[in-house]
Amino acid sequence: MAFTLPVYHPPDFSQPPLKDAPLVGFGPVLEPGIAPANYHATTIFPEYFQLSKGAWVLLRNSRMDGVVVLSPDGSLQVKEFHHLEKGEQVALGRGENGEEGIYVHAEAFSQAPPVAGKFAFRTHPSRETSFSIDYDTLYDLLSYEREDGFILWVVGSAAVFDRDSRNALVELIRQGYVHGLLAGNALAVHDIEATFFQTALGQEIYGKRPSPLGHYHHLDALNRVRRAGSIAAAMESGLIRDGVMHALWQKRVPMVLAGSIRDDGPLPEVVTDVMQAQDAMRALTGRATTVIAVASQLHSIAVGNLTPGYRVLPEGQVRPVYFYVVDMSEFAAEKLTNRGSLAARGILTNAQDFLVILQRGLSRR
Amino acid sequence: MAFTLPVYHPPDFSQPPLKDAPLVGFGPVLEPGIAPANYHATTIFPEYFQLSKGAWVLLRNSRMDGVVVLSPDGSLQVKEFHHLEKGEQVALGRGENGEEGIYVHAEAFSQAPPVAGKFAFRTHPSRETSFSIDYDTLYDLLSYEREDGFILWVVGSAAVFDRDSRNALVELIRQGYVHGLLAGNALAVHDIEATFFQTALGQEIYGKRPSPLGHYHHLDALNRVRRAGSIAAAMESGLIRDGVMHALWQKRVPMVLAGSIRDDGPLPEVVTDVMQAQDAMRALTGRATTVIAVASQLHSIAVGNLTPGYRVLPEGQVRPVYFYVVDMSEFAAEKLTNRGSLAARGILTNAQDFLVILQRGLSRR
Amino acid sequence: MAFTLPVYHPPDFSQPPLKDAPLVGFGPVLEPGIAPANYHATTIFPEYFQLSKGAWVLLRNSRMDGVVVLSPDGSLQVKEFHHLEKGEQVALGRGENGEEGIYVHAEAFSQAPPVAGKFAFRTHPSRETSFSIDYDTLYDLLSYEREDGFILWVVGSAAVFDRDSRNALVELIRQGYVHGLLAGNALAVHDIEATFFQTALGQEIYGKRPSPLGHYHHLDALNRVRRAGSIAAAMESGLIRDGVMHALWQKRVPMVLAGSIRDDGPLPEVVTDVMQAQDAMRALTGRATTVIAVASQLHSIAVGNLTPGYRVLPEGQVRPVYFYVVDMSEFAAEKLTNRGSLAARGILTNAQDFLVILQRGLSRR
Amino acid sequence: MAFTLPVYHPPDFSQPPLKDAPLVGFGPVLEPGIAPANYHATTIFPEYFQLSKGAWVLLRNSRMDGVVVLSPDGSLQVKEFHHLEKGEQVALGRGENGEEGIYVHAEAFSQAPPVAGKFAFRTHPSRETSFSIDYDTLYDLLSYEREDGFILWVVGSAAVFDRDSRNALVELIRQGYVHGLLAGNALAVHDIEATFFQTALGQEIYGKRPSPLGHYHHLDALNRVRRAGSIAAAMESGLIRDGVMHALWQKRVPMVLAGSIRDDGPLPEVVTDVMQAQDAMRALTGRATTVIAVASQLHSIAVGNLTPGYRVLPEGQVRPVYFYVVDMSEFAAEKLTNRGSLAARGILTNAQDFLVILQRGLSRR
Repeated sequence: MAFTLPVYHPPDFSQPPLKDAPLVGFGPVLEPGIAPANYHATTIFPEYFQLSKGAWVLLRNSRMDGVVVLSPDGSLQVKEFHHLEKGEQVALGRGENGEEGIYVHAEAFSQAPPVAGKFAFRTHPSRETSFSIDYDTLYDLLSYEREDGFILWVVGSAAVFDRDSRNALVELIRQGYVHGLLAGNALAVHDIEATFFQTALGQEIYGKRPSPLGHYHHLDALNRVRRAGSIAAAMESGLIRDGVMHALWQKRVPMVLAGSIRDDGPLPEVVTDVMQAQDAMRALTGRATTVIAVASQLHSIAVGNLTPGYRVLPEGQVRPVYFYVVDMSEFAAEKLTNRGSLAARGILTNAQDFLVILQRGLSRR
Repeated sequence: MAFTLPVYHPPDFSQPPLKDAPLVGFGPVLEPGIAPANYHATTIFPEYFQLSKGAWVLLRNSRMDGVVVLSPDGSLQVKEFHHLEKGEQVALGRGENGEEGIYVHAEAFSQAPPVAGKFAFRTHPSRETSFSIDYDTLYDLLSYEREDGFILWVVGSAAVFDRDSRNALVELIRQGYVHGLLAGNALAVHDIEATFFQTALGQEIYGKRPSPLGHYHHLDALNRVRRAGSIAAAMESGLIRDGVMHALWQKRVPMVLAGSIRDDGPLPEVVTDVMQAQDAMRALTGRATTVIAVASQLHSIAVGNLTPGYRVLPEGQVRPVYFYVVDMSEFAAEKLTNRGSLAARGILTNAQDFLVILQRGLSRR
Repeated sequence: MAFTLPVYHPPDFSQPPLKDAPLVGFGPVLEPGIAPANYHATTIFPEYFQLSKGAWVLLRNSRMDGVVVLSPDGSLQVKEFHHLEKGEQVALGRGENGEEGIYVHAEAFSQAPPVAGKFAFRTHPSRETSFSIDYDTLYDLLSYEREDGFILWVVGSAAVFDRDSRNALVELIRQGYVHGLLAGNALAVHDIEATFFQTALGQEIYGKRPSPLGHYHHLDALNRVRRAGSIAAAMESGLIRDGVMHALWQKRVPMVLAGSIRDDGPLPEVVTDVMQAQDAMRALTGRATTVIAVASQLHSIAVGNLTPGYRVLPEGQVRPVYFYVVDMSEFAAEKLTNRGSLAARGILTNAQDFLVILQRGLSRR
Repeated sequence: MAFTLPVYHPPDFSQPPLKDAPLVGFGPVLEPGIAPANYHATTIFPEYFQLSKGAWVLLRNSRMDGVVVLSPDGSLQVKEFHHLEKGEQVALGRGENGEEGIYVHAEAFSQAPPVAGKFAFRTHPSRETSFSIDYDTLYDLLSYEREDGFILWVVGSAAVFDRDSRNALVELIRQGYVHGLLAGNALAVHDIEATFFQTALGQEIYGKRPSPLGHYHHLDALNRVRRAGSIAAAMESGLIRDGVMHALWQKRVPMVLAGSIRDDGPLPEVVTDVMQAQDAMRALTGRATTVIAVASQLHSIAVGNLTPGYRVLPEGQVRPVYFYVVDMSEFAAEKLTNRGSLAARGILTNAQDFLVILQRGLSRR
C-alpha cells in the first residue's frame, strides 16, 4: 500500500486565545553561551512565534532544548546554549499557549486514540507487542522516503557483529535506503575488522569461533587505517573492498562517526570533540524525514535530542519526522519516550533480525 | 549443507578405573514415593551402570533428577521420586567415575574448544552474539529431523500475539517441521481468540488497535470452546477453521497443554494437574531429537528438566538431542544452562522475528 | 507519617444516567461450567448491580474475569467459569455505565494527575525512577496493615537464594508483617535445602561456592521431607529448625504452595492441581489488603488475576487493595499493568536488596 | 573481618621456558600515531619484558590495548596509539609465554576453583545469585582502601535521580570512601538540578511528581552554572550548597566529567574532547586500587578499558585492582567480562538500593 503523508493541521490563529496573544519578546545575550533569564527552550513540536501582529512564524529547523534567536534579517534560528553569541536576541517566555506570543503545537499530526472501555489489557508496548504491521509500514514508508525523503540511520556496532546482518545493511545502502548514517568509532572499526579478518572483537562473525590472538584484530584494523590516513583513503587505495563503510563510500552517503570515551584508536574520521560531533550530526538530522536507530542506546538518545518531530519541506509543507528505535530492552526503547521524544516508535527485537527481515522485505517489493 | 549426526564416543570400559569398577548396588523402596538413602540421581548425560562384570548398561530414556529402578526383567528405568513404588530396587551411589559402578559420560559428544590465548573478548553469548550460523544450522538440522527425527516445539503465547509470527508457526506445522508441541492454556486461548476476533487479549494481532470491550475476547473464546466440549470438537464442528491449533489438529500433531495458576477457563484439553502434565510432556520429550523453545521461561525450564542430552535410537545408535532456547533476555536464555542443561543453545531475539525468519528460510530450500 | 485510608467515593446513583438505569438481567447456566451468552465479566474495580429499583449492590469479593451469580438468598457471588453449576443465574450485560443495570466504578479512589505541560520527560516508571518514597510509604502502610489489614506475600525462590534476604524474610514473618504467603514448590524446597545444607541448588547461599555433588541437595531435601510426611511434620519432629517455612509454621501463617510443571518432588503440601491451587490462593487473596509480590513473574501475574483493586471491610467501608510488584525488568513489572491490574506499583530492583532494606527500615521504627 | 591483600605470585624466571627466552625486540614509530608491524598490545594482566638477560621488567602502569614504549632512560611506558611519537621504540611480539621476550602473567592472583562434579547448576552469575557476601566483602575492602588504597567511583546519573541514593553517595564522599569520581555531564547536571529544584529531569527526586514546566529545570541549572563560570565557582559563590558535586568540592575529591554526544549545555568542567577525557580519566584510573561502577554502561566499559587488573605499590608490592560493576541487566554487567576485563565482579541490582545498603552498612562499622 503506497505511503501518503498525513495532513498537517496548523493552529487556528484567528480564534482566541491566539487571536489576542501578545507579540513574543526577546532579550539580549550578555555573555557568550549564556541565555538571558526567562529564555524559551524548544521542544520537538512545531512552535510558532508571533513576531508582528498576526504574523506567527513557524520554526524551520528545530530540536529539543534549543533557544530561539532572532536574526538581523528577521528570521528565527534555533541554537544551542553554547553557540549563543553576545548581543544575540533570544526569545523569552515559557507559556506554551500564546500567552507570551509563543505557541507549542503538540497536536499537529495526532489522531483520536481508539477507545477500549474502562478496562483493557496490553496498553503499553513490550516485547509481546505485535510488530508485523511495523515491518509493513516500514516497507511502504522507506519506499516513499527513498525517492522523496531523507532516511537517516543510527547504528550500533552489534549490526556488524553478524554476517547476515552486516550484509543486509550493505544491501540497504546499495539499494538507496540509507541517505545518512550516524555511528561511533566501534561500528567502523568492527566493520573494517570484518573486512580484514572476518571477525568482530576477535570472534568470527559467522562461525563464532574465537581467533588465536583475536584481540589484536581490531587494533590491527585501526592501525592499518590510521596508516592509510583515513577510511576514505583506505577505500581509494583498495585496502578495504567490502562492508558497510565501503558501501557508504561507494554511494557517497554522508556519515558522522562521533567519538566516545570507550574508543580505541580512534579512526581518523572520528570527531573526538562531542560538541563538534553534535554539530556534524545536526547537519544530518536537520535533513532527516525518517530516522531508524538500531542497537545503540547512547546514539539513539543523542539523535533523539537532535531531531524534531516535524520537517518543513521546501514548498512550506509541514510533515512528520518518523523515528524508530530498535532495541532488545523495553528500558532502552522507552528511554526516548521518557526523554520527551514522544513520536518515537519502539521495535523490541534483535538488531540483527530486524535488519535481515527489513532488507529481505524491501527486496521483494 | 546436509546435516550429519556427530559420532558418539562411548567410554572405554577396558581401561582403569572403569575396568576395575565394582558392580552398582541397589536398595529397596520402603515407602512409596521415597528413595532409599544414597540413591543415585540422573543427569542429562548418558549414564552407564555396571550390572554384572563388564556389562555396563546405558540408560535409554533418561532426564535430569530422576532415580534408576532395576526392573524384574533386568532392564533399567528412570523414574520420578513420586512414582516410586514400594519394593522397587533403586540404584545407589553418587560417584560419577565408576567408583560405585556408575559412570556419567559428560564428554560423549564434546569437541576440543578452540584456543584464543590468555586474553579474549566476548567469551559469553549475548544479544550481540552472531546468530546467522544458528539459522543456517537450523535449516540443515530441521530438514534432517523432519525426515529422521522428532522436532518438539515449546511455545509461549507471544508467538500468536502477532499475525506474521502466528502464520509462520502454522506454515511450519503444515510443512512437517513440528512433530509435537508443548504449551500452556494461553497459547491455545489466544490462538483461538485470533481465529474468532483477530485479536490477542483484545488487541488486534495486526493493526494493534484495542477492540471495544476486547477484554471479553479471550473469555468468549474460552466459553465457546468449553461449550463445544473440547478444542478437537470445535475443529470437527467447523467452529475453528484456522490458526495454530487447527493446523496441529489437521496434521494430527500430538500436543500437551499444561495448566498453570495463571489460567483462565481453562480449555478442556488443559491438563490441570501438573504432575500428570509432566507425565504427558515426558511422553513427548522421550521421543524428541530436537527441541525448540520460544518465548516461555516457565515451559522452557520445565522441558529442560524433562529432556536428556542424548537419545538412543532403535538400532542402538546414540545421538545428541539439540535444544534451542529463543528469548529476549540473557537471564532467561541462561536459566537452562544454570540449571545444568548444558547443551542448550540460546538465541537472543524476539520470538516473532525468529519464527518468521526460520519459516521463510526453510521455505526457500 | 501515619498511614490513613483514602476516602472512597461511591457513584452518585441519584443522577442520570444511573438514576434511569434498568435492572440488571440474569440468564441461566444451561451446561455446567459454561456461561450464558452476553454474560458479564468482572474487572478489578468495584462493580454495582441494580437488583431492584434504586438498590445498587456492590460486589463484595470480586476479581478479574469472573462471572456474577445471583444466589437464592438474593446476594451476588463472583465465580469462575468452571465452577458454574447448571441452573445458576448469571448476570448479563457488558455496558459499564448502567445501560444494562451494571456500573463499573473505575474512578473510586483516583486523584487528579499532576499537570506538567505539553512536554515532559520520564512519564513512565523504569529502573531510573526514584524509589525512596515507595520504601517510606511501605513502612507506613505495613505498620498500619500489620494491625488492621492483611498483608499477603507472593515470593519467588530467589528470595531464599541469599542469606541476608532469607533472614530478612524470616524477620518480617516473626515481626508480624506477613499474614499469608503464596509461593511455589521451589521456594519451600530451596528454603529447606538452606536449612540442611546452607545452599540453594547446590551453591552456598552466603559463600557462593558450589558444593561437591551439590545438585543432590534439593533432591535430598525433598526426599527427607517426603519421608517425614509433610513440611509441617518435619517441623514438629524437629527435622527443620529454621528458615522461612519454619517461621511461617511457628507463627501459624497460612500459606499456599501452588504446583507448576517445573517442580521436582514435589513437597507434600504442594497443590498439584492448578485449579485447586487457584481456589486455595483465592481464599487468601480474598482477605488481602496489601499484596507484595517479589521475584516471581508466574505467581505475580496469577495473583494479580485473583486480587481485586478494593476490599469491602466488615463494617461496609470500601478501601483499596495495594499491590506492589518487585522485579528486575520493566517487562515483568509492567506485565501486571498490561493485564489490567492498573493499581499495581512496580519497584524495579533485586528482590534481595528490597527485602533487606524493607526489613531493616521496619525494624528501625 | 579485616581485609588483607592477597599474595602476589611472580612468575618463576629461573625455569624454562622463561629461563631460555630471548630479549624482547623493539621497532621504531615511523609515523606519529602509527605502531610498527608486530607491535605488542597490552592486556589487563601484569606483563614482563626481558630487557637484558634475566632482567624481566614488570609494566608499572598498564591497561588494555596499549603499546609499550622504551624510554631513553630504559624504563617502559604504556601509551595509546594516538600518542605515539615518531622515533619512539615500541615493543614487538605477540607471544605471551616468553617466546619473544614477553610474558603475560594471567594467573598472578588466581586461586584453584572449587570442584562441583560433572554436573552443577548456577555456574553463571545472574540476578538470582547471592550478593550478601559481596556487601560484606565491600565493607571490609572499602574500610581498608579508605586508609591504604584509592577508591575510584564511576557513577551514572540514575544515582542522583533518587533522594536517598543521592544522600547515600554524599555520605560516602564525606566519610572518605570516595577518592576519585568519573562521570558524565548528566550526573552533575541532575545533581545540581536537585539542589535548585529537588527534581531530576523535572520529576521530584522524592515525591516523583512532575513539575510544571519541569523540562526547564536541567536547562536552568546548566545556564546558572555556566553563568557562574564553573561548578567550582558556583560552590565558592554559595550558589550550590549541597549534593554530590558539593561534597566532592568540599572534600577536594578529584573528578572527571567526560563529554558525550547526549550532553546538553555542557557544564564548564566537562571535557568535550573524548581523547582528552580519556587522558584525564587515566590519571585517576592509574591510581585506583578499587573501582566501583554503578548504573552507567558507557562509563563502566570505558573505565574497564583504562584500568589494569593490578597495581604496583610504591614499595614494589603488586596487588590486585578490584572492579565492581553494579547494574540491572546481566547484559551490561557481563559486557566488561566479555571485553576481557575478567576481574570485574557484577552485582545485579538497582544502583539506588546498592548505594543505600552500602552506605548504611559502612556507617554501622
